[in-house]
Formats: sequence, C-alpha cells, structure tokens
Amino acid sequence: MAVIGHVSLVGAGPGDPGLLTRRAIACLRRADLVLYDALVDDRVLRYARKAQRFFVGKRAGRHALTQRGIEAVMIRAARRGRRVVRLKGGDPFVFGRGGEEALALQRAGVPYDIVPGVTSAVAAPAAAGIPVTHRGLASGFVVVAGHDEEAFAAAIDPLAPNALTVVVMMGLGRSAAIAGRLIDRGWARGTPAAVIVDAWSSEQQVWRGTLDRLAAGNVDVDRAGAGTIVIGEVVTLGIAAASRRERNVGRR
Amino acid sequence: MAVIGHVSLVGAGPGDPGLLTRRAIACLRRADLVLYDALVDDRVLRYARKAQRFFVGKRAGRHALTQRGIEAVMIRAARRGRRVVRLKGGDPFVFGRGGEEALALQRAGVPYDIVPGVTSAVAAPAAAGIPVTHRGLASGFVVVAGHDEEAFAAAIDPLAPNALTVVVMMGLGRSAAIAGRLIDRGWARGTPAAVIVDAWSSEQQVWRGTLDRLAAGNVDVDRAGAGTIVIGEVVTLGIAAASRRERNVGRR
Repeated sequence: MAVIGHVSLVGAGPGDPGLLTRRAIACLRRADLVLYDALVDDRVLRYARKAQRFFVGKRAGRHALTQRGIEAVMIRAARRGRRVVRLKGGDPFVFGRGGEEALALQRAGVPYDIVPGVTSAVAAPAAAGIPVTHRGLASGFVVVAGHDEEAFAAAIDPLAPNALTVVVMMGLGRSAAIAGRLIDRGWARGTPAAVIVDAWSSEQQVWRGTLDRLAAGNVDVDRAGAGTIVIGEVVTLGIAAASRRERNVGRR
Repeated sequence: MAVIGHVSLVGAGPGDPGLLTRRAIACLRRADLVLYDALVDDRVLRYARKAQRFFVGKRAGRHALTQRGIEAVMIRAARRGRRVVRLKGGDPFVFGRGGEEALALQRAGVPYDIVPGVTSAVAAPAAAGIPVTHRGLASGFVVVAGHDEEAFAAAIDPLAPNALTVVVMMGLGRSAAIAGRLIDRGWARGTPAAVIVDAWSSEQQVWRGTLDRLAAGNVDVDRAGAGTIVIGEVVTLGIAAASRRERNVGRR
C-alpha cells in the first residue's frame, strides 16, 4: 500500500493566538509542513515546531505561488506521507479558497479535513465593540470581499440600501471606491461606518465615521495592515472596543 | 475600594470542544460562575471545573431566565468579585444578544471582555463540505435568523433572488415557511438547499435538496436539534462532508 499523508485546511482566526482553536493547535503541533498566507501571525506559526514552513501568500502584490501551485505542493507532500497544514487567516471557507483546495485534494484522492476558524468577518468588528447583529438595529449581516471591483459590485448591488449590516473584507485599499459604490446604489451618506485594522493585535487601529467620509478618503488608519470595513447602524452602539478593554482588564 | 469581578462573553463555537478557542478554555478554567445557553455542549462545560454552572437558555419553549434576569445575575455576581463566563453557542455577537449584554455590563461599570467564537453560520455548512463563498459561485453570503417570521422577512426581502449564499440560523422549525418566503420573493424553486443539524457532533445530520422540497417539508432530519439552513449554488459543490471525513481519517 502506498504511503499517504494528510492535509488539514485550517483557519488561523484573526491573528491573536488566543483565538486559535484547540484543533488548529493540535494540527500545527503534528504538522511536517505548513503552507501559510500573509494574514497568519508569527505567534501562530510557532506552534508548528517540527514543521517546515512555507509562505505561499501575496507579498508586495505578487503571489509567492499560484493557486494551482499551492494545490500541487500539498498533494505531492501528502503522497510522500507528510502531514500538511494549509493555514489561512480567519476561516478557510470565507474567501479562503478552501473549497477549491478541498476539491483538488478530493480529486487527487488525498485525505483531508477542514478546521473552521474564528472568521475576521465577525471578530474584527467585535474587536472594536461592534456586533454584526443587534436586536432592533440589524437582523442580519452580509459578508463580501472588496478587493475586486466587479466581484464587489456583483455582491452588493443585489442588496437594498441600509437594510443589513455589511462587512467588507480585503477592501482596505479600495475603501473610498467601496463607499462611493454604496452611495451610488442609494445608501444614505450618513450611514455609520468603521474600519478595523489588525484586529486583536497590539497594533489594532479603529476608525469610525460615515460612508460620506469613507468615500472622501478621510480614513486615518495604516492601509498596509489587514482591514475590515463595517457599515451600518451597529457601528454606533458605543460598546467599548473589546480587545482594548481586554488589555485593560489584563493589567488589573 | 469595592471588590469587583469580571465577566467574559464567550463564544463556545458549534459544539465540538476541538473548536473552542484557547482563550475560551482559559476563561472557563478560571470561572467561578458559568451561565450557559441551550446550544452549549456538555463536553465544553467540563472545562469549567471549579465553577457553578447555570442553564439560562430556552428549554421546551420557555426561557429559564429573562434577558434582563441574565444581565442582573451577571452584574450581581461580578460585584461580589466573581469571575463570570457568559457562554453562548457559536459567537456571542452573531444573534447572541452579546451586544445587549455588553451594554448592560458597561452601564453597570462591570469590567468585561468579549471572546469571539467559531460561528455556526460558517462552521455548520463547512461540516457538510459547503463553503459559504466560492469563486464563480458566490462572491458573498448573508446570515439571517429564521425563528421569527417578521425579522426573517425584514432581513431577506431587501435581497435580490439567487445573488448570494443565504445562511439561516435558528430556522429549523420554520424551514418550510422560510423556503416558501424565498420562492414568493422570486427565488428559483430549484435553488439548492441544505440543512445541517447538530454540526460537528457525532449526531450530525445533513439533508440536501432544493427550495421546493424544503418548502414542501420533505426534510428527513431530526427537528429537535440545532439546525442551520444553507441556500445557494455552493450546496452542490460536492465536497465531502468535512466532519465525517475527519472521523474517517481519525480511524485510519
């Protein structure tokens, strides 16, 4: 019988190692090979003590490896009997191409499992004290990606203005265009909006304003970090930033 | 100075203790008092070895405690210097009333923190091999609650038919009415749909069909469990059920 390894498609959560799941940690500890993305924190990678670690994400706008290349590396390593962890920021099935990778592994006959993670779609707003749903304010939420103009429009145009909370992932570099599109589609200019950068890290930054100001580019956060945009009335609830509160609590 | 305790609003994830975060486990281990909901698994509660544990959720359609009652118990216990964990299925800010509880604690001057969890909105579909987003099929997803007819309509009516993946939480008991509403709003009768019950547990059940069949009530799952409904083309991707696959892998 041929030696066959195993691949785990693992969500690393928003970055903070405290928000890793027990299973993610167990996978990392056992791993021989870890393929990780730009959004994965160094403190998370340290759990993979005995593994070779390869960066396969995007750096300076260029992919270290193509999507097909990543799949080929995983399959080849598993066929050599290795335990592979494909580590993704947040959750592997939320804009993580986890579905594509699962299908590739399945076609290749490589055993795999999926380890869901804490998605930044919910946890990044929470870090700023913003719940994506709230009785009387938002009875649901929409999660879309912002990095591609066409895909963003396709996802947001079917939605009536100001009905649900909107969470935009990977949209920091296009935040003015994103807000502009929503205003063009009839969203109120004064709709509350927030931008959370590097959520749950010591470098966390939170900006709060309106769609109007977002469209005008008046956002004083570092655009180099990983950012999440939240749009809707839930932004104004005034719950203290969860992650800062937690740091204060830790200092008592 | 008055003795003051602390409250953590903690997401317990979908049930499987392997999907608890490291911080959730740390909070449970330190806790003096745990207030938990119906969706929290016994294996999760076992981490709270030294804590008093109180069920405050809904059982047989009746609330053990009102929302205001839960808030009062948390505040009173914290003021007596106790470490309280308010443990919620999934994530505390996704239909978990976490926002309301955070505001109540803040008004009372009680220190608190929020520990995001793996939300069932993403993890329950993943357990059935269904990614909520997938390139070319779904460029975003919507999460709504299904237990209340009016709130469901308010959340779903602003959305154009068949545009994004829809995840309905707490809608198992109303699945026929939910599917009917979508069909009335113009969704294609043949839109793929799935129901996942008790995701990530050994009792997991998955039903796959169409909106039409869902509306007709042809769903052979146990309605007593916690259920998530997923609607959209991503249901048909044919990725093996993640949690079952994992069990198979465990047995090798």
